[in-house]
Amino acid sequence: MSEVTAGIIIFPDLTQLDATGPWEVFASTPGMRVLTIAKTREPIKAKGGLLLLADATLADCPPLDIVCVPGGPGANVAMEDEEILGFLRARAPGLRYLTSVCTGALVLGAAGLLRGRRATTHWSAHDLLAGLGAIPTAGRVVRDGNVFTGGGVTAGIDFALTLVAEIFGSEAAQMVQLGLEYAPEPPFAAGTPATAPANVLAAALTRGVAMRARREELVARSKIF
Amino acid sequence: MSEVTAGIIIFPDLTQLDATGPWEVFASTPGMRVLTIAKTREPIKAKGGLLLLADATLADCPPLDIVCVPGGPGANVAMEDEEILGFLRARAPGLRYLTSVCTGALVLGAAGLLRGRRATTHWSAHDLLAGLGAIPTAGRVVRDGNVFTGGGVTAGIDFALTLVAEIFGSEAAQMVQLGLEYAPEPPFAAGTPATAPANVLAAALTRGVAMRARREELVARSKIF
Repeated sequence: MSEVTAGIIIFPDLTQLDATGPWEVFASTPGMRVLTIAKTREPIKAKGGLLLLADATLADCPPLDIVCVPGGPGANVAMEDEEILGFLRARAPGLRYLTSVCTGALVLGAAGLLRGRRATTHWSAHDLLAGLGAIPTAGRVVRDGNVFTGGGVTAGIDFALTLVAEIFGSEAAQMVQLGLEYAPEPPFAAGTPATAPANVLAAALTRGVAMRARREELVARSKIF
Repeated sequence: MSEVTAGIIIFPDLTQLDATGPWEVFASTPGMRVLTIAKTREPIKAKGGLLLLADATLADCPPLDIVCVPGGPGANVAMEDEEILGFLRARAPGLRYLTSVCTGALVLGAAGLLRGRRATTHWSAHDLLAGLGAIPTAGRVVRDGNVFTGGGVTAGIDFALTLVAEIFGSEAAQMVQLGLEYAPEPPFAAGTPATAPANVLAAALTRGVAMRARREELVARSKIF
């Protein structure tokens, strides 16, 4: 099998773990190559400040088999960035897999690429997918044809292992999982709204009010219909 | 409480998820600041090629409350890098927490900072900790006093959440966990040697023979005793 190339789009104020989780899984898979792709080659400052440099730009990036869009606050800006949306629309028809992690799904949606597709995203934005023509679907990893979407942030690791298994088989994915010692033991059971203590969920919702309002606005004025 | 500053050391050929997992947890915690620290401000190329830029150098980095050393192939080089070892030895006495993820523990050990301490590291190097004076201890996150060590790669997320709970309380850690939607669902049960299929483990051990031999050599010639 010839090399499978995945491109992960990075942009200012992304949640870097949305990108670096799948990046590590893909880069650990023999037969895969993974590139970070950005609008420019300037350093990209992730939410919280981590500095990343892209391997390629949207304009000069080589043919890709997989595109993955991560999320984070910067995904709100990406939802209206015609250069990013145009790249996604132009590349989508030639891809083996079109993918996202976290609120990267809103960017795919804003590009008009999730119409009629089952998809998932971060729990705080899950229902908003409907406003972009998608079918919000419960699941940490949701597949609809060649579109794979992962839930919030850390779901990117589960998503990427699932995609590696799809492409290279379960033994290849298990090798990667063993190498990454991925036998998680979260110290609490607070990872979803359904399992988090009520006060923790309430505090998270309060803290997220402005972000939620902003995303509702972006979805409402998206031009995909 | 005044701001708690964590410094994560980055170096060429590190396993970037060892660093970026804890980075995301720390950066998502109100009251924490997290810096990447390297020998120089040149781009750091992680194992597989991801390009990172450090926020500070070993020489100019501000006072730190926490130091975290990630692992990966580049940790072998770090084990003999007197600038990194000297930084760790100089900073250790003033830290609230000295920490590592994956084979970053071998670097702490090579600096002589794990003598008599219970510690963990990536499963493939776990027993080697004894040669550095540590007490190899089973566990995805192992604490001995103010030394916290995480197991392989993805254990860094569990480690960081555990440390956030220690410093800021369980509610703060649960808030971060919910934000990162950390309710993992690994697609396979292959994350440890004990649970991986026998053929997968055998293939991983075969693929790791040279790395294992190299680490044995480095431990044998470490100068800590």
